[in-house]
Amino acid sequence: MEKFLTDQSHKRFNILTREWVLVSPHRTKRPWQGKQESLPAMDRPSYDPACYLCPGNERASGDVNPDYEDVFFFENDFAALKSQVEEQKFEDGLLRAETESGICKVICFSPDHSKSLADMSIDGIDKVVKMWQREYRDLGNQDHINYVQIFENKGEVMGCSNPHPHGQIWSQSSLPNEVVKKDRSQRSYFEKHKKSMLGEYLEQEQAYNDRIIYENEAFIVLIPFWAVWPYEAMIVPKTHQTNILEIPTAETSLFADAISRLTKAYDKLFDCSFPYSSGIHQAPTDGKDHSHWHWHMSFYPPLLRSATVKKFMVGYEMFASPQRDITAESAAEILRDLF
Amino acid sequence: MEKFLTDQSHKRFNILTREWVLVSPHRTKRPWQGKQESLPAMDRPSYDPACYLCPGNERASGDVNPDYEDVFFFENDFAALKSQVEEQKFEDGLLRAETESGICKVICFSPDHSKSLADMSIDGIDKVVKMWQREYRDLGNQDHINYVQIFENKGEVMGCSNPHPHGQIWSQSSLPNEVVKKDRSQRSYFEKHKKSMLGEYLEQEQAYNDRIIYENEAFIVLIPFWAVWPYEAMIVPKTHQTNILEIPTAETSLFADAISRLTKAYDKLFDCSFPYSSGIHQAPTDGKDHSHWHWHMSFYPPLLRSATVKKFMVGYEMFASPQRDITAESAAEILRDLF
Ligand SMILES: O=P(O)(O)O[C@H]1O[C@H](CO)[C@@H](O)[C@H](O)[C@H]1O
Ligand SMILES: O=P(O)(O)O[C@H]1O[C@H](CO)[C@@H](O)[C@H](O)[C@H]1O
Repeated sequence: MEKFLTDQSHKRFNILTREWVLVSPHRTKRPWQGKQESLPAMDRPSYDPACYLCPGNERASGDVNPDYEDVFFFENDFAALKSQVEEQKFEDGLLRAETESGICKVICFSPDHSKSLADMSIDGIDKVVKMWQREYRDLGNQDHINYVQIFENKGEVMGCSNPHPHGQIWSQSSLPNEVVKKDRSQRSYFEKHKKSMLGEYLEQEQAYNDRIIYENEAFIVLIPFWAVWPYEAMIVPKTHQTNILEIPTAETSLFADAISRLTKAYDKLFDCSFPYSSGIHQAPTDGKDHSHWHWHMSFYPPLLRSATVKKFMVGYEMFASPQRDITAESAAEILRDLF
Repeated sequence: MEKFLTDQSHKRFNILTREWVLVSPHRTKRPWQGKQESLPAMDRPSYDPACYLCPGNERASGDVNPDYEDVFFFENDFAALKSQVEEQKFEDGLLRAETESGICKVICFSPDHSKSLADMSIDGIDKVVKMWQREYRDLGNQDHINYVQIFENKGEVMGCSNPHPHGQIWSQSSLPNEVVKKDRSQRSYFEKHKKSMLGEYLEQEQAYNDRIIYENEAFIVLIPFWAVWPYEAMIVPKTHQTNILEIPTAETSLFADAISRLTKAYDKLFDCSFPYSSGIHQAPTDGKDHSHWHWHMSFYPPLLRSATVKKFMVGYEMFASPQRDITAESAAEILRDLF
């Protein structure tokens, strides 16, 4: 690789969002006198009577959770999106707004309050994958749902308000910003080359082999060339699949394996239950042709130097562009050793 | 205003970035059991011998700060951007990178370690404004500097590593993502209407008058219709100015007045030294025609409910689109009362 990519300020292009990230490889020696995060308690009981996600407990809505044995979902009691009867638009000169209708669900990964994906068995994670598939299908089949966003906020530092292992699904009537960007870039590549852009990208990554951290028969785990967060990673199916329903039945456990390996490696990195937000980007469910989509799952973990020092995406990052200090290649090298 | 804007999930369009924000007005009742921020100490001494920004103290570089009396700047000792001799590009299939050259400066607002902009006199802030003007001009005049990003990270929770009142300027050779977006939207409006888009927007806001929180002879302070952060605000000059050098000499103190009023109101909101990132977006310094630009200063404060509970822009926000609970109009109403 070009030398400037390892030792000089440069920007890298994200082929999916078509935005740039600023990389400053020389800046890792910067001293840190700033905020230190407090570590959440590591020893949680398997059942917490005060947790509204544990089996048998009551939620804010008054509903009581069943004695579930593996995965369990319910509609978010404080949903940011609701199914709305009437579509409305407001447009007055430069002011524009539209109603947004949707369904928000909470997905419990396990009845065991003490676990995270990193501690669960492949089989347990496979059940989560299958629940994601069902939800993507069932939500997507509803008329007013055109996009299904599956995500997880893990750890207090990622705004997670309950340590019980869970993720969320917010599904909605219109395509959100990030999805619109990735839709455009993949479509225009596919129209021109008649091939999946991410598929082609994976081939290049396999040739370079310096950002791939793990692969099994069906999935590749890598630090994308344009990674923003210090240890950002991406799980991508090797074959061209537009959404998670296209994972061959025999391969959902290989997706679970990739998630398991990555989250375990993360936990080892700074010897803590590693916080992150993760999300799956896949084809919209608006009934249109989406052969250009190649679904992928991304992990955005905030920690930079230790379990208590995170990267802040603030002033420059908010007003100009994301910025990182360690390169994608050195992050990959560090993570690969922990697999 | 349409009723759905006050009580139903909807999205609003940001005319500058051309992206949407999801608004969920009904969601403010959501309980919070998540992370509480710790409050930084409020009583700081006017001089801290351990602070590398106080007058007379030594910095990491070994340089000693002068006994400055109002504002003071120096080149960042751990700059994310450096002036580079050779421009280089890397392009291999889907991998693209380019060297990025630049100059990063730290701007001390006051020698007094205990102050923030909210505690400073209008005259003191006016000196900061004049320093921003000089830096915008001098940095912008350099051949390899095509954009000058002025910003401040205030408060530990915004990744600020030193409470001494200071901001930063990162200037660089290419236009960062956010600036490219705002450049495009303003240019296309200006070409079509031969008028400043923000100027027109201000007129609409003055007619509605429910998002404006303060105005003096030259500036308007408002919560933009498309605000993302709970108490996000914007300071906009009433006349069409492309960059801060075009502020009439007699009016820099009115800009200082607007900053002073807003930061004071912020401090009152949750009775704390209110954290935020702020930044000025203005015309690039690449020598091209930028008559379409209308400069503005934005404040992105993270606090949501109290001095210790912030809004987290995580899973859904990172993967889909920003989301807020309280509407711009109710935030404006609350802030207006504190002016
Ligand atoms: O330059 P500072 O104050 O040390 O660092 C802070 O601001 C920078 C610019 O927004 C960010 O890149 C850092 O993550 C943040 O901690
Ligand atoms: O839904 P939760 O877990 O209560 O809330 C968390 O995730 C949401 C979706 O990313 C965010 O909007 C909230 O700011 C965050 O605290």
